[in-house]
Amino acid sequence: MNLTLYDLQGVEDRRFSPYCWRARFALAHKGLEAEIVPVKYTDKDVIAFSGQTKVPVLADGETAVSDSWNIACYLEDNAPDRPSLFGCAVGRGTARLVNHWMDEAVIPHLFRLLIGEIYDHVRPEDREYFRTTREVRLGMTIEAARKEREIHLEPFRRSLEPASATLEEQAYLSGEAPAYPDYIVFSAFQWARSISPFPVIERDDGLYPWRERMLDLFGGLARNVPAYDY
Amino acid sequence: MNLTLYDLQGVEDRRFSPYCWRARFALAHKGLEAEIVPVKYTDKDVIAFSGQTKVPVLADGETAVSDSWNIACYLEDNAPDRPSLFGCAVGRGTARLVNHWMDEAVIPHLFRLLIGEIYDHVRPEDREYFRTTREVRLGMTIEAARKEREIHLEPFRRSLEPASATLEEQAYLSGEAPAYPDYIVFSAFQWARSISPFPVIERDDGLYPWRERMLDLFGGLARNVPAYDY
Repeated sequence: MNLTLYDLQGVEDRRFSPYCWRARFALAHKGLEAEIVPVKYTDKDVIAFSGQTKVPVLADGETAVSDSWNIACYLEDNAPDRPSLFGCAVGRGTARLVNHWMDEAVIPHLFRLLIGEIYDHVRPEDREYFRTTREVRLGMTIEAARKEREIHLEPFRRSLEPASATLEEQAYLSGEAPAYPDYIVFSAFQWARSISPFPVIERDDGLYPWRERMLDLFGGLARNVPAYDY
Repeated sequence: MNLTLYDLQGVEDRRFSPYCWRARFALAHKGLEAEIVPVKYTDKDVIAFSGQTKVPVLADGETAVSDSWNIACYLEDNAPDRPSLFGCAVGRGTARLVNHWMDEAVIPHLFRLLIGEIYDHVRPEDREYFRTTREVRLGMTIEAARKEREIHLEPFRRSLEPASATLEEQAYLSGEAPAYPDYIVFSAFQWARSISPFPVIERDDGLYPWRERMLDLFGGLARNVPAYDY
């Protein structure tokens, strides 16, 4: 395989897309090397070859794969001799449900909790694009959303209760070893720490020791990047 | 194996515990026969041998296993030559997360939506026990909860959006064939149809065709019991 991953980049080289982090971890789990190419929101020409306008995009020679889920499946299917991301067909099917749970029940709370600081960490030339697209999604200005951020903290934490309960019983969300469901959930925390000092997870939280273990995986892949510590 | 499953029973022989249905489907998936013994809330002497006061309880000769998750794991580990409920270790780990998601993010809405009709279908001799324990959980009388039932419909349906989105992409929540994650989620719908004519799922719902397929599994295991059709 001849792999290139196109990865969203903010100010200070912050790589903050949770979906790009899922792809970074999928590559690491498979033990596959890829060239990581930073992409700005307003520099979509770089990924035009893929027919897509959003990152992550994975290029494997002439083949382009977009969307983090499709990238994970592509790597799983095209590197079957490497450690499995899903373990088996039931594991893959169920990971799809976890992917949707995260995207629909958890990430929207985190988006509204962090919107002000995401904006602060978007590159200056990307800010107009970011503001225009996100204010439609928010239904309000970024400044208005920033003022009401705190109301999203409790729903965010409550939405993760199924994960906390699971981690009382096993070391990882995927069982005794990490696999793709862990990367799906962890990438949201990596997004948060990449752009905000606000402690969305506190030290006494049941998820905290797991997050620490995830930060240590693959030689500190997620720990050793520009981010806020808490 | 010499299996007996103790199963909650209401009026008209309605078997309405979602947790007991998870165990019924786990047995069917494994192709294992068990004697099914009906239990009333106030007849806990029948399961006293297990050291537990709640069903489901599975007895395998001298061994007693309680809690639907533990029963699924027991069957998986003790009948490894039969079709797998989880597929692999990642599948089992991830199913644990789905189990907690269902119990913590979905079932509480359904409980409040159906509480009045659950009460109506509890055996007369069990009603005082049921009322006392459930009114503590509700923080109000069953009659008060019944009056506000409709406010729980929208949160219930919204909580299932990750499942609907998954079923737009694959035939079952576990992938191309049903496995334990499907039984976890389906059992909530079986609970509902066992005791209430209220259509918690409508024909145009993305989950409806999947629920139909689940009702047909194992020779109509869930369809061919006293229940309300919708």
